[in-house]
Order: sequence, then C-alpha cells, then structure tokens
Amino acid sequence: METYRIIEIKKNITENNDKRAQVVREKLKDSNTFVINVMSSPGSGKTTTLLQTINALKDKYKLGVIEADLDSDVDASTISKTGIKVVQLNTGHGCHMTAAMADEGLEDINYKDLDLVFLENIGNLICPTSFDTGATSNICILSVPEGDDKPLKYPPMFEMCEVMIINKIDAASFFDFDIDKCISHVKKLNPEIKVFPLSAKTGEGIQEWIQWVESKLVK
Amino acid sequence: METYRIIEIKKNITENNDKRAQVVREKLKDSNTFVINVMSSPGSGKTTTLLQTINALKDKYKLGVIEADLDSDVDASTISKTGIKVVQLNTGHGCHMTAAMADEGLEDINYKDLDLVFLENIGNLICPTSFDTGATSNICILSVPEGDDKPLKYPPMFEMCEVMIINKIDAASFFDFDIDKCISHVKKLNPEIKVFPLSAKTGEGIQEWIQWVESKLVK
Repeated sequence: METYRIIEIKKNITENNDKRAQVVREKLKDSNTFVINVMSSPGSGKTTTLLQTINALKDKYKLGVIEADLDSDVDASTISKTGIKVVQLNTGHGCHMTAAMADEGLEDINYKDLDLVFLENIGNLICPTSFDTGATSNICILSVPEGDDKPLKYPPMFEMCEVMIINKIDAASFFDFDIDKCISHVKKLNPEIKVFPLSAKTGEGIQEWIQWVESKLVK
Repeated sequence: METYRIIEIKKNITENNDKRAQVVREKLKDSNTFVINVMSSPGSGKTTTLLQTINALKDKYKLGVIEADLDSDVDASTISKTGIKVVQLNTGHGCHMTAAMADEGLEDINYKDLDLVFLENIGNLICPTSFDTGATSNICILSVPEGDDKPLKYPPMFEMCEVMIINKIDAASFFDFDIDKCISHVKKLNPEIKVFPLSAKTGEGIQEWIQWVESKLVK
C-alpha cells in the first residue's frame, strides 16, 4: 500500500517536471542556446572540466554556467574567475536539479543572450537521471579513481547520456583503471554514446571534447 | 502548491521509515548485533575498506554484509570470497537504503547469529542522509580524489556520521588533498566526529579504524 502510494506521487512529480522541461527545451531552441547538463559523482571533476572548456571557448562564444549545490558557492566562485556569467542555486537537501530550477537559473542568467550554458548538476550519479532539466544535451563524467565498473552499478546514468567523459586519465596507472573495459561496459548499455577520455588537470585529451562542444554551437 | 504537497508526502515517507528504523534498532539491541551503515559517493572504496575490515575480524567475530546497489552483484561477489555471509539488494532506480530494506536484509542474513553486520549503502552522498536504516552506527567514507572541500558541499552527510574515514590517503600528494583542511571543515559541522585517514589499498592507517570497530563489539 505504501509502495503504491509513493510510486503514484513520483509519477505526478516527474510528469510535471517533464512538462516544464519541454517548455525549457522549446525556449532554448527559439533562442539558439545550447545547454549541457553535466552530471557525475561528487569530486569527479565537473568544475575543473568546465574551467578548461570555458577558457578554450569564452573568446569565441557567449557562455554561462548554472551551479547547483546543496550548500556553499565554492564552484560558482571558482568559475566566476573566468569572467563569464555564473548563477548559484542552493538546494538544501535536494539531490538533483529539476526543470523548474534550470528554468529559473536560465532566466536569471539571461540565456537568450548566450550561445552555450552549462548546468553543473548536483554530485549524484542516481537521482538526476529521473529529472529532465530541459537541457539540449545530457553528459556525464566518470573519473578514474571511481573505478571502471561504475557503468555496471549505475546503468540509468550511462544509458541516458549523449557523452561520457572519463576524467583523471593521468591517474589511470595509479588506480589500475582499464579504459577499454570501461568503454566496453558503457557501450553495452548505450552503443551510441561518445566517450572522451581526458585529464582536465593536465589538458590531455581535452581538445576532442571541446571540438565536440563546438560542433553543436550555431556560429 | 506543488512544493507543499511534495513536502507533506516526504514527511509521511520519512515518518514511516523512522518508525521502522526504531523497530530495527530495538531488534539489534536485543540480539547484541552491531550494525554499521557505510555511506559514500560511488567509488570511494566502501567495498575495499570492508574487505580489509572483514579479513581482520572474521576469525574473532561472526560477520555479515548487506549490499545495496541499483544493479549488479559486483560487490556481493567480491565480499563473498572472504567466506562471510552476504545478502545483495538491488534497488533499480532507488537512491538509498530504507529501514524496510535493511530489515529485510537483516532477517535474510539471520542477524541474530551475528556480532557485526555492515550495510553497504548505495553510492550517494545525499539521499541516504534522509533515511534512517536503524543501524547502530552511521559512518561515511570520503576518498582523497573527491577533494577536501566535500564537507562544505554536502554537509548533512558529515553532520550525521559518527565516523568519517578519509580513504586513498596514498594518493594525497597526487591529488593535492589537504587532510588537515578536510578535518577542519568536517569538525566545524560535527565536533564529535571521529576521523580515520587510511588507505584500504595499502593498509596504512587501517588498524585505528579496526580498533574502533572492535571497541563497539560485545565480546
């Protein structure tokens, strides 16, 4: 009885969220703003990857970042040093970004004037998969220290993403991470996924990822 | 209106969970079974830490592990090689262990015959903080590659735990992780928390953690 009730409520919440996500998606299409929802575990390197990406693209395109965190503005403060627009959303106990939160952040950052906005979702490999933000593209970052078996253990994340970045490849030998095995696991779940192994710290492999981002932007 | 409704429902769910957790806690007290709820991000080293702990204690105490994962039995398979009892719970999209799940797992593993049971919660630094499992003790593992700022960004986890393990300290210089700064952040949130910096891989620092576990067990 209890289970049934929870499921019904969850259906209502996600249905309402899906409607709002569709509204967001239409708005972004109208203004030619490309929005990338970046998801990962805590500490996988979302902010460092965004920093490298922003520094490579900020002179050619108008960029913005919407940061979601339970608490603190550590990441927003880091990103704002690049000189681009940043909005911080604090969620308290909230474990994912909703379409309503994304919409609010996008209005606040004045998305119509921007070519590309990153949503840095809350560090969580599970809950964000149930909530469409309305972003144009969903990507995830898996970092080497987390282990090459993570696609087996958290399949919904890897099934829904257009891109998987494997970050911290400079630490691959230290952590005995098998990149080929990881790619093989993820391709079984999602044959179309694009995989970019890179190190946001050293810059190795970052160009291929940045080229992919640029290929999506309207010149 | 929508927000209010969600909050009300959440209150019902957590109230029901709290009641069930209390039932679990009473049962564990009656049977002198110590249960440790182990929480962390994906890939922080829960399973490796448990392996070391089990191997150190399995000849002196009767042990068991309850594994919760969205999918796969990778961890249960690893732990079962130690020869102790393991139960695997698969949650699908479920992002945390509930008291009902813990209760079911404890019954299945025949907790009354055991001195110590580990609940290896789902890899998630957020949602498990809202759901009391009924465990005797809550602990979390933060691994060095995640960064020393994580207590600032995910405060509820560090506030609720009796112990924080800082794992993968053998990688501290590689990742520029400041152990003192991390401990200072967490002590501001939770002055009573016990901190064990260790490497489950090399065994460095593991003895202090194992001594703490043993101090909790009825001889």
